[in-house]
Order: sequence, then C-alpha cells, then structure tokens
Amino acid sequence: MATEISPLAPKSYAQLPPIAGVRIETAAAGIKYKDRTDVMLMVFDRPAAVAGVFTTSKCPSAPVDFCRANLADGQARALVVNSGNANAFTGKKGREATELTAKSAAEAVGCKPSEVFLASTGVIGEPLDASKFASVLGTMAGSASGDRWLDAARAIMTTDTYPKVATRTAKIDGVTVRLNGMAKGAGMIAPDMATMLSFVVTDADIEPGALQTMLGRHVGSTFNAVTVDSDTSTSDTLMVFATGAATERGAGAIRSASDPRARSFSKALAELMEDLAIQIVRDGEGARKQVEITVTGAASAKAAGRIARSIANSPLVKTAVAGEDANWGRIVMAVGKAGEKAERDKLAIWFGDVRVAVDGERDPGYSEAAASDVMKQDEIAIRVDLGIGRGKARVFTCDLTKAYVEINGDYRS
Amino acid sequence: MATEISPLAPKSYAQLPPIAGVRIETAAAGIKYKDRTDVMLMVFDRPAAVAGVFTTSKCPSAPVDFCRANLADGQARALVVNSGNANAFTGKKGREATELTAKSAAEAVGCKPSEVFLASTGVIGEPLDASKFASVLGTMAGSASGDRWLDAARAIMTTDTYPKVATRTAKIDGVTVRLNGMAKGAGMIAPDMATMLSFVVTDADIEPGALQTMLGRHVGSTFNAVTVDSDTSTSDTLMVFATGAATERGAGAIRSASDPRARSFSKALAELMEDLAIQIVRDGEGARKQVEITVTGAASAKAAGRIARSIANSPLVKTAVAGEDANWGRIVMAVGKAGEKAERDKLAIWFGDVRVAVDGERDPGYSEAAASDVMKQDEIAIRVDLGIGRGKARVFTCDLTKAYVEINGDYRS
Repeated sequence: MATEISPLAPKSYAQLPPIAGVRIETAAAGIKYKDRTDVMLMVFDRPAAVAGVFTTSKCPSAPVDFCRANLADGQARALVVNSGNANAFTGKKGREATELTAKSAAEAVGCKPSEVFLASTGVIGEPLDASKFASVLGTMAGSASGDRWLDAARAIMTTDTYPKVATRTAKIDGVTVRLNGMAKGAGMIAPDMATMLSFVVTDADIEPGALQTMLGRHVGSTFNAVTVDSDTSTSDTLMVFATGAATERGAGAIRSASDPRARSFSKALAELMEDLAIQIVRDGEGARKQVEITVTGAASAKAAGRIARSIANSPLVKTAVAGEDANWGRIVMAVGKAGEKAERDKLAIWFGDVRVAVDGERDPGYSEAAASDVMKQDEIAIRVDLGIGRGKARVFTCDLTKAYVEINGDYRS
Repeated sequence: MATEISPLAPKSYAQLPPIAGVRIETAAAGIKYKDRTDVMLMVFDRPAAVAGVFTTSKCPSAPVDFCRANLADGQARALVVNSGNANAFTGKKGREATELTAKSAAEAVGCKPSEVFLASTGVIGEPLDASKFASVLGTMAGSASGDRWLDAARAIMTTDTYPKVATRTAKIDGVTVRLNGMAKGAGMIAPDMATMLSFVVTDADIEPGALQTMLGRHVGSTFNAVTVDSDTSTSDTLMVFATGAATERGAGAIRSASDPRARSFSKALAELMEDLAIQIVRDGEGARKQVEITVTGAASAKAAGRIARSIANSPLVKTAVAGEDANWGRIVMAVGKAGEKAERDKLAIWFGDVRVAVDGERDPGYSEAAASDVMKQDEIAIRVDLGIGRGKARVFTCDLTKAYVEINGDYRS
C-alpha cells in the first residue's frame, strides 16, 4: 500500500468547527490494519434528518442494502463506519454482520437499529467480524465529542494518503448554519451515485425529503463527475445528516427544497460536495496531476457527459498526462469512441489556454512548446468543443501512473 | 517505445505459403522511423473481391473514409499500408494525402484509384507526407513477390513487439484453398468493428457480398472480442481479399455465404481471425499475461458481452492480474458496475478450475494457495456464471503493467 502522501494533498486541512447535535469518536478495532483507527461512530443525541445516495452497482455491499432500507424513515441516531473490510459479497454472513453492528450501536446510543446507518470500506469478499465493534461501541458512545472531524476522516481511510474534510456556512432566516463534511476514496472511483464514502452534517433543520432533493440535485456535478479509474465501487455511499440544532438560534425549518430560504444552504452544500469530490481525485491512487475536462458544444448535456467521461477514463489520455505529453490525438480518439454525435471537422481542442486543434485538424498556429508547458503543471485543464450544439459537461480526473499499477498489484495481499 | 519482445510472443512464426494472385513488397519510406520498413504494398494482378469492416469511431481516419467509399465496388487491385503516421484528424490535408497515395499506387499497378485500398497507423493529428510513397510505389509494384508475408507484417508494426501472421486451409469443391492473414496492434485496442489493422488474403473465389457476410459473422467473436486498454482506435481496419485464383484448380466460385460449399472456408476464416486477434492481445502494450474471460448464465448474449468487457477493461482487475493477486472481489465490482442484470446471491466465479466464489459469497472451500497458483500462469482463464439466464460471451485481454504506463507516457515524443 502507498505510504507516500500525494503531491496534490492540501497544504493544510480545513478546521472543522463543532456542529451542535452531533458527537464523534474513533477507535482501533483491529479489523485489518495495525496501529491505526479503523472505526468511526457519529452519535446524534436527538434524531437527525437523513438523506443518502448509494452505488448503482448490481452487487452492492451489505451496508448499502442496510442503509437503503433504513433511509425510508429519514431519521438517524447513529452512523458507524469501518475501514479495512467492505462487507461486500459476503452473503448471509454480511447481513448478519450489519444486524449485529446496528444492534450494538443501538444499545450504545439508546435507539432503534432502524435509526442506525452503516458503511464499510476495504477488501471485498472477506467476512467481517462484527463482534469487534460490539465491544467498543459502548465506550465510544460515551466519550464521543464535537471536535473529532479530522480523526473521523482518518479512521475511514483505506489507500487514501490524506484525510478529506471540508466546511461551509450558509444563512437560513439570517442565521448562520454550518455544514461539515468528510470523504474517503482513492481507487475504485467512478461513482455512479456517490463516491466511496462521504458524510456531511449540518445543524440546519431540513426535512429528509428536501435534503434528499438537494443532494440529488448536486451529486451529478460533484461526486458523480469525478473518476480515478472508471471502476464503480460496490460500496459508494454519500449521506447528509441535518441535526436541526440551529433552530434554537432562529434558523427555521426547511420543508421543501424549492423554499427560497434554502438557497444559501443548497449552494453551500454544492460547494462542499465539489470540494470533497476534488479532494478525492487529488488523492487518486498514484495521482500526480489533477485534470479538469470540459466538453462544450455537444448535442446534449448527456452526450457532453459521456464524451467527457470517455476522455477522463481513457488509459491512453491518462498515461499521456502522466508523461507530460501533449498528445491531443488521444483526445480525438476518446471523443471518437464515446459513441455520441461528433463531427470530426468541427472539433476543437485546448490544453489550458492553448488551442491545439481546430476544424478537424491541428491548429495552424500549433506550438508544441506552448502545449508542453501546460502539461508540466500540476493542474491541467482540457477543453473540447464539438461545435454542434449547446450540451456542456465537466468531469474531474487524475493521471494514470506506474504507482497506480504498483498500488493495485499488491493492495490485497 | 518498448523494444523488449513480449514474453507472450510466439516461439516461432507461422510459415505463410504464397497465395496465387497476390504479390507483396515492403519499403522504408522514412515516414517516422529510422532503419526499418514502414510501407507495404499488396498487388492483385487481377481484380480481387474485397470485404472490410472499420472502426465505429466518430472521428475516423482519412484512409478509413477512403476505404469505405471504395468498398462499394467490391474490387481491389492494390493495398497500401504505412506505419508511423495514422493520417487521422488531418482534415483536408489528410484527404489530399489519401488521394495522392491512391493515384501513385494506381499508376504503379495500372488500375483506377477506386481499386486501391489504404490503411495508415501511428501518430494521430500529424499531416502525412504522401509524396514519400509516390517515389517508391512504382519500384515496389515491379519487385513485389508472393513470399513476403512476414516482411509485410513487420512493415505495418508500431508499438508491436512481434509481427502477427497466421495461415489456414479450407476445401471448396474438394479443392484446398488457402487463407493468409496478418495483423498489427498493441495499444489503443478495443476494436468496435475490427482491430487496428488486419488483412486476410485467400485464393478462393468468393463474391464480395458473401465475403462481407462471412466477415461480419466472425468479427464479433474474434477481433471485437479482444481489448488491450478499452481505447477504440480511429483507424481500425480489417479487410479480406479473395483473388479467385483457386478456380483454375477447380475450386468453384462462392456467390452466397449460405452456400454449403462455403462452410469449410467460413470456419477457416473464423479460426484465422481468432488466431490473429489473440496474437494482438498477447502483444498488448506491456502485457505479461493473456486473460480469457468467459461469462455464462447472463440474461442475454449482449448482457454477457457487456459484463465480460466490463471485467476485461477494469484497471483494477488488470492490475491485480499483473500482480498475480487472486483478487476476485474486483471481479464482483466489475460485474456490478456493468449495468446489466445480475443477482449478487447467484453469482459464481472461477480462476482457472478453482471456484473462488459461489452463491454471493466466498466459496466455502476457498483456497488462497490454489487461486494464487492459477494467477502465476502466463494464460489465465476467468469465468463468471450469473445464474440467471443462458447468455454467454468470451473476451480476451491482457494485464495492465507499469510497462503500459511507461510505453504510453512517451510514445509520441
């Protein structure tokens, strides 16, 4: 496993303030790793509204199944997350493990198992020994406090080289509410609903339905717009919890996502989600460069998205970026294979501000030196204009380096 | 560029006999490479029937456009192939280059430009200087002979580490006819109609329509069933030429693909195509292992194909194979992300003959040692049974190694 921290890691981590209504604790349950925390408990002393989106995988993990079932009630009292074992493709044993974990957490917190939410990340296919949680959750619930956000983000890491946290504020009825979020994920990242694992908590009072609507509105342009390796996980989970504690300070309840009073919150939520999503790309396994791909002029937004993803997932484009090679022919290839409408002779391509191709051939003013200068940067913008419509999309990815192959050639063993 | 020969290269090359009606010559036109041949001319002294399939890329190369137009007549007198430059995304200059090449070849051979077929492979986006051909084609047409198959296969190589040739025989009216074929391709290989470049020649007398039908029948299970890196090229071209010279020896003309007299030929063609397609996978950029993925029990053959391709194209599966890691959880992930119907609890997975998962969880008799032994082989069979229908598919691929990243980080520069 990689121990070297990504060169794209943040210079310093955001300072997350406490959020009224939630307490956090971490512990080392010895699930797989030695000498590090691997379990995180979030306690909501009063029921929090909860919304979530999950992997579209046809082989979802047991915790994903468990959360989907509990989400119907829209109320959360506890969240338990472990790293080191994904509890995915574990059959009946997997379901038993989720039930035992939820029962232990419910006892520790004093709630029903249906108010507990679970997420697991790590190896697929190995039975998870949930009795390891049972023994620590009681103690954790007692010692949980409001200032453990960075510890929590560390406890849920697998091949991540840094913890991912972000914080925003918004106004409701003139009162400042807070949003804190964390995420994990570095490989098996091509979320098709949400990323590996991400949890956002706010003290705003937002009804589950409204929260779910806002989450759904922003997930497409944030977590679903990042890809590390085109491999969609069995365990993708993104949940937002609203404790409602800010009502005590005068921030009234939001009952509908279309309430104009929700605008500031919705915007802050979108920003927070984008911040976390980009942090995942910047910690992509073996990543040395962040790549932002913008497609404009496509037949539709959906077509633009497919083309952007075709570029972002192309091993040849990603290795060219790793090699700092301004190989724009591979962008042409990726546009061509996407299966969406494209007219070769209307296509234009930019690396950064340098237009390298136009009207279906190399730009007459093409400068290899100028294009190469762009490729030497840490953050590379690639833009493609199809010239046939108004469809637009943006996708974030990273390069494909030898380190990715190394990390994934011996991750499990 | 990689110079080390793939460890999966054939121990010896097939000996291709001359085929009556076709002569071949190669030359070094200095298009990009130094000290090697980079242009190949095939001359059909009498018109040969021709059939072809090409890339489905929306940004096809100029030679692909050119061949598609000429294919309507179904007659060929010459084939010109160059390596070092794909003449793709070269706009008006690209069309002019194909016209000049065809004109030069037509003059050299004594035919119409509409009887000339072209293919180019190499860098995308750089104008191709066709005047380099003009000066050599005349000499080449004169010196072309029947025994240059291996030379021809070498002249069309780019990042290939070995030439790919195959030969078969079939019977028509009790008379033996021959099929010779060659192919090139090592990266940008996920053919969606044909592979990078492959050419098959027979002395049988087969009408263009019948030839096209047989080609279409076999391409799905051969060239379209291989993938190196999921990147479909702008230049994929597979053509079959039938000189008809075997009629002189009593092998009558075939006018329809459903003629029972065509059966032996069709079978030999399928075998030849599979042979060449697998040679491409075995020379996949950086490949150290050949992987055969079989999916059974899917809802339909199409669903099986999508699932097989999802596994074959997954970077996490391919890096696990490179690391000789029996990480079957990644197979589960790739099945899950394919978007096709799957029921987790009916899934079974084998590495070679070792069943590693069944009924939605790890096989009760799972042996890490037995699974690991399979992964140490050069040729690895992965089988997935969905347990829900009768759909079947098979796809061939290779592993993803650091050498792939290295080769593609500096291919162009």
